[in-house]
Amino acid sequence: MSKYQTLKEQSYEANMEIPARGLALYTWGNVSAFDKNSGVFAIKPSGVPYPELKPEDIVVVDLEGKIVEGKLNPSSDTNTHMVLYREFGVKQGADIGGIIHTHSTVACAWAQALKPIPLFGTTHADHIQVSVPCTPYLSKEAVERDYELETGNLIVRHFLENKINPDEVTMVLVGGHGPFAWGKTAEKAVYNGAVLEEVAKMAMYTLQIKSDASPLADYIVNKHYMRKHGPNAYYGQKK
Amino acid sequence: MSKYQTLKEQSYEANMEIPARGLALYTWGNVSAFDKNSGVFAIKPSGVPYPELKPEDIVVVDLEGKIVEGKLNPSSDTNTHMVLYREFGVKQGADIGGIIHTHSTVACAWAQALKPIPLFGTTHADHIQVSVPCTPYLSKEAVERDYELETGNLIVRHFLENKINPDEVTMVLVGGHGPFAWGKTAEKAVYNGAVLEEVAKMAMYTLQIKSDASPLADYIVNKHYMRKHGPNAYYGQKK
Amino acid sequence: MSKYQTLKEQSYEANMEIPARGLALYTWGNVSAFDKNSGVFAIKPSGVPYPELKPEDIVVVDLEGKIVEGKLNPSSDTNTHMVLYREFGVKQGADIGGIIHTHSTVACAWAQALKPIPLFGTTHADHIQVSVPCTPYLSKEAVERDYELETGNLIVRHFLENKINPDEVTMVLVGGHGPFAWGKTAEKAVYNGAVLEEVAKMAMYTLQIKSDASPLADYIVNKHYMRKHGPNAYYGQKK
Amino acid sequence: MSKYQTLKEQSYEANMEIPARGLALYTWGNVSAFDKNSGVFAIKPSGVPYPELKPEDIVVVDLEGKIVEGKLNPSSDTNTHMVLYREFGVKQGADIGGIIHTHSTVACAWAQALKPIPLFGTTHADHIQVSVPCTPYLSKEAVERDYELETGNLIVRHFLENKINPDEVTMVLVGGHGPFAWGKTAEKAVYNGAVLEEVAKMAMYTLQIKSDASPLADYIVNKHYMRKHGPNAYYGQKK
Repeated sequence: MSKYQTLKEQSYEANMEIPARGLALYTWGNVSAFDKNSGVFAIKPSGVPYPELKPEDIVVVDLEGKIVEGKLNPSSDTNTHMVLYREFGVKQGADIGGIIHTHSTVACAWAQALKPIPLFGTTHADHIQVSVPCTPYLSKEAVERDYELETGNLIVRHFLENKINPDEVTMVLVGGHGPFAWGKTAEKAVYNGAVLEEVAKMAMYTLQIKSDASPLADYIVNKHYMRKHGPNAYYGQKK
Repeated sequence: MSKYQTLKEQSYEANMEIPARGLALYTWGNVSAFDKNSGVFAIKPSGVPYPELKPEDIVVVDLEGKIVEGKLNPSSDTNTHMVLYREFGVKQGADIGGIIHTHSTVACAWAQALKPIPLFGTTHADHIQVSVPCTPYLSKEAVERDYELETGNLIVRHFLENKINPDEVTMVLVGGHGPFAWGKTAEKAVYNGAVLEEVAKMAMYTLQIKSDASPLADYIVNKHYMRKHGPNAYYGQKK
Repeated sequence: MSKYQTLKEQSYEANMEIPARGLALYTWGNVSAFDKNSGVFAIKPSGVPYPELKPEDIVVVDLEGKIVEGKLNPSSDTNTHMVLYREFGVKQGADIGGIIHTHSTVACAWAQALKPIPLFGTTHADHIQVSVPCTPYLSKEAVERDYELETGNLIVRHFLENKINPDEVTMVLVGGHGPFAWGKTAEKAVYNGAVLEEVAKMAMYTLQIKSDASPLADYIVNKHYMRKHGPNAYYGQKK
Repeated sequence: MSKYQTLKEQSYEANMEIPARGLALYTWGNVSAFDKNSGVFAIKPSGVPYPELKPEDIVVVDLEGKIVEGKLNPSSDTNTHMVLYREFGVKQGADIGGIIHTHSTVACAWAQALKPIPLFGTTHADHIQVSVPCTPYLSKEAVERDYELETGNLIVRHFLENKINPDEVTMVLVGGHGPFAWGKTAEKAVYNGAVLEEVAKMAMYTLQIKSDASPLADYIVNKHYMRKHGPNAYYGQKK
């Protein structure tokens, strides 16, 4: 049995949530599960339809992008995942155990509009305390150099330049492309990907109802975030 | 067997309608069932996913917010429910046996836009005779004092100041947050929560089709409400 | 066994299509099946949830509105159905064997906006050759006199005044209220109700994409309608 | 056993994907599978509901429009399919093994607005490198001459006049009508039909979020298309 069996199963289960939650058509999404200790992540193979996917198809890749285990090609977005684990997870010490990329419909529409998703309400504030960031387009040079790797760099640079903490802001739109999200586990990454799509819908509808809607008051943002994520969080059950 | 067995089962059944009717993702909703005689209500435990929820997980709480039965933490919104039962149900004598809170998508969008939902048609008038009220943001002081309890007070105050009768208007949007609804039973509360989401959609689409659409004529509003709720109501079967 | 067994089963089957096709929440819709020879129609009982509905619950009513068979109250909209069968079916000789009324979301939005649904494309033209008509509000006097019966009269009058043939235009929006549709059978009425909702969506989206979209060219309208409904129709299989 | 058994089964399987993927209500869509060697295609019979469709109902037609096998009338759109196979597949040598026509909701809305779908993001660029083309209305003369055949001619002429390569652009909107898409197989044609509907939704939402959204930068378009379709494509598994 593979020493990465658990990691591969976590990745498999999380990938199967993509079609279950309607986050992508066909094969347009992928989730990886990261084990910081062994420095590898387990990711969906490229182009395999979810109904045919099996846990043993999951590909294990190290932080140099080398395949450690698996017979199939890993997701074409593998290098983006790799950069995020390397930069956010290892270098910056963020608690990232999983990453999701999808083409969920309304999150993509915001990314295509090159607009961050404004923080209009508590559904959003329950998860992050600022607008969902949206990067500019990747530059021509970066696209030609190494597209997927540079997409990771673009996200990392955007967070650094805008002083965004990846432990607190667990989702991003890549301009012209679509959403990435992450979390402490692959399962939590999928959760954040679903949150992002729902928040994207609510914000779009909010603007349709009131085109000059105001961002939520700061003190409500903070309260909602803190009751779920602060040192005295009281949402959910004690662990 | 618990003396609150029936109340807990009513609460459980009503909570399970939230995912069945698509009124919230993950754990973002809760229903309580109230027994006015014993002065307690049975509410969903905090953060428990619906597929894992069992009737015995439901928490019984009294009108001071103390847990009467149950091992789990009750919903973080428990104090909002408590205030509504205490003020609307006991003090004002309204016939409230259940309350629902969700983050249903389009109702949240109206709440995020801080706009009441205009009464445009008979689908709305079949249930309430006025716009769905929307409170302003809760004040900074109130948020810091006791967020969930003050959310309940905000709703009660908004109804008093605007002379809204909670027996007639069984739903409200909390500004920047989302919908609460109630009814004679927990089951009816869920029904009113679903009505609110549907009416929210219809009103948004109405404005997209005609941005200056007019509210429904008063005499049609009254007719539709009265045929379902008036002293000579003739909708449905005799009980 | 009831002499109306077949008619009741047709009505039952057609009513069960309402939830199956998402045309109404809860009990907000009804279908009737009409037998012109015996001058009766079989309609859903009022307020009975679809999952509990049984063929024997269907109520048989004559063209004076008297219950011929059945223990339950018929739909509160029974008199609207009755007027349409009487006026369109018997007096004008239209071929109407079934009527549906729902609160389908986008059709209601058009009705709430008091706007006919423009004929923008062939999906619409495959079924009717003009905009989906929308009546004005029912007058105060008519509402007070006999709401449901006068709703039927309003539709009939709107068709007469605008020279609309109910054999050709099998659907209508009642202003501020919602859609009614009919057909040669109850099954066909449901089909037309589903067509109306789909056409309502497409037209709303068309205006969102191009706010001054033009109606479809007449010669394409005629071609599409005629290939399905004209004397030389060639859509479908020979019967 | 029919010598066209495989072709008919491919057509059947592909047709059954139309309701499974929500691409059309009732019978409003059809797929054909083409065998270039024998010069015939297998197409859905006209007006047969998907739940009743069986592989043996599929009709085999040659490139003159003559029925080679099958007892039912072929789709009323058969001549449009025929022209596309004849012109794109045989004369121009494009690699077309299947065609789909549906009335998917948002693609129809763009067709009704007579607007090509702008290329706003990578979801679109993963499949085609330009806007989804939209033909003008078919002329009155052409409609009267031979509607379905001339619809095919309209598409072919629009591609020629605008120098669009049907091997690269595998989808089109017929103005005022709706979408057609094709692919190397019938299965791939359905895939492209589903892509078109999803891209249509994303583009509509993009314009709702930002009414003057810019088309995606050319160098990103090319990168995304090429990583899936170029000579060095690296998406998916090696075959």
